[in-house]
Amino acid sequence: MKPIVLSLPGNELLAQKIIVAIQADKAEYELRSFPDGETYLRVLSDVAERDIILVCTLYQPDSKLLPLLFLCRLLKDLKVKSICLVSPYLAYMRQDKQFKSGEAVTSGYFASVLSGICDRLITIDPHLHRRVSMKEIYSIPCDVLHAASIISKWIKANIPDALVIGPDSESEQWVSEVAKNAEVPFVILEKVRHGDKEVKVSVPQVDGYKAHTPVLVDDIISTARTMIETVSHLKNAGMRAPVCIGVHAVFAGNAYADLRNAGVAKIVTCNSITHETNEIDISEILIHALRNKTMFNAL
Amino acid sequence: MKPIVLSLPGNELLAQKIIVAIQADKAEYELRSFPDGETYLRVLSDVAERDIILVCTLYQPDSKLLPLLFLCRLLKDLKVKSICLVSPYLAYMRQDKQFKSGEAVTSGYFASVLSGICDRLITIDPHLHRRVSMKEIYSIPCDVLHAASIISKWIKANIPDALVIGPDSESEQWVSEVAKNAEVPFVILEKVRHGDKEVKVSVPQVDGYKAHTPVLVDDIISTARTMIETVSHLKNAGMRAPVCIGVHAVFAGNAYADLRNAGVAKIVTCNSITHETNEIDISEILIHALRNKTMFNAL
Repeated sequence: MKPIVLSLPGNELLAQKIIVAIQADKAEYELRSFPDGETYLRVLSDVAERDIILVCTLYQPDSKLLPLLFLCRLLKDLKVKSICLVSPYLAYMRQDKQFKSGEAVTSGYFASVLSGICDRLITIDPHLHRRVSMKEIYSIPCDVLHAASIISKWIKANIPDALVIGPDSESEQWVSEVAKNAEVPFVILEKVRHGDKEVKVSVPQVDGYKAHTPVLVDDIISTARTMIETVSHLKNAGMRAPVCIGVHAVFAGNAYADLRNAGVAKIVTCNSITHETNEIDISEILIHALRNKTMFNAL
Repeated sequence: MKPIVLSLPGNELLAQKIIVAIQADKAEYELRSFPDGETYLRVLSDVAERDIILVCTLYQPDSKLLPLLFLCRLLKDLKVKSICLVSPYLAYMRQDKQFKSGEAVTSGYFASVLSGICDRLITIDPHLHRRVSMKEIYSIPCDVLHAASIISKWIKANIPDALVIGPDSESEQWVSEVAKNAEVPFVILEKVRHGDKEVKVSVPQVDGYKAHTPVLVDDIISTARTMIETVSHLKNAGMRAPVCIGVHAVFAGNAYADLRNAGVAKIVTCNSITHETNEIDISEILIHALRNKTMFNAL
């Protein structure tokens, strides 16, 4: 039977694209708050024996956890065959070790909650950082998709004279792939962290690239500190105003305003988190993954 | 070793009373939001091998669940001996069956989350309604305490000419206990529900009590509809303006203003939920229960 798509609030556009592209059904439900702040939830569609594609990006995750948890429990009680959580932005990937004694390693706790309520997780460029694989924290199968291909396409179409600039050595692999597929050169910054917040970057020799448009890429734009510092270095080196591309538009606090004021030509993000800079559509890569029907058979 | 008390934000006063009364230690911790909305949590005290008394009333529960869940997971990782959750108001007790197909029976889901993260639960007058015992939904030991004794004391001290009025036949047992200990008479309303929201009450013969002050009591004042309707019936019957007493001051939406405007003499609640009507202190009955040291030995 066809899978059935259920989108949590705020994910309707992506869900609709998935429904049309893979010819899935749409699940109807009712989710509201009682006047005392408790959640009321009711699934209206017949979901028994169906494979559920649950679309919920996990930016600002804390308020989303309880409805998600109740919904997954309810779907299981309604005897669904499987629940595949499609979460373009996955939260709680950054606190992946105890920096100080007594700290909660929240990436593990969050992963164990999701692993307990879903059967499979599809996400895009999770911030793995110190971890090699999602398997280290998630006990369910995870499909990690990459936005590199769609970022390359965007660069190729919009900035043919780009010099792609990656934020650190960890990112070298995907940044080189982005540059290669966009058929443009790339350089990688040296990043030195001083403590928790202070980050210094050193920009490599870019004198030979003065005719290029610098394109800074990163998986998450959060505080944007590294990007802002890099913009300043590039300006001092006499380069053009850069374009900044991020997969996930987190933009913590004033980061967006600060980055805009730093002297950038443009800021572009993927729509894994809704933001006015969204210009690269991630639905294509999610649909490609979901079309692989064996995903459901494997569960 | 002495138990150690950890109070989640908003529960500091009650926690401090418990610490003083049972000579417990106080656990220090850090809980804050990252700019991207994720929670940071660090326990600063040495909690290994300790019995934890975790104080967290669960009014407006949705935003409290994730920090509570992370905190309990962290405490377990820090090798505490046991976690006893002291929750004067327990949420999600009202959706205890499927009224319509596809509805989430959230009382069970919430109970299973709490049962999975704590070792014991202490609460006051949970709204059991269709359930006989907490054992039907909670798989951990639950100590259900009752505010009847402190409500009796308050009535005896403040309204010696009270006529206690209970909302429905379900409440007869505790209402009769409240009245008996306050040494005043009582009557019970007949309550007929028409659908989900409409409630009709019929007030029994109260002609013989015109020299009494009617004191309406209920476990939760939520929408306050029954109380408001009863106030109107009592007025028509020529009774004095009543005093309204609730254990839990939920006051959904405009309920508080509506009840005040209905012609009541006074509204009084216990402080299981912080509210300006709090006049009856529940710490005494919680402390009495916590003094029973066997509670921890039993875990």
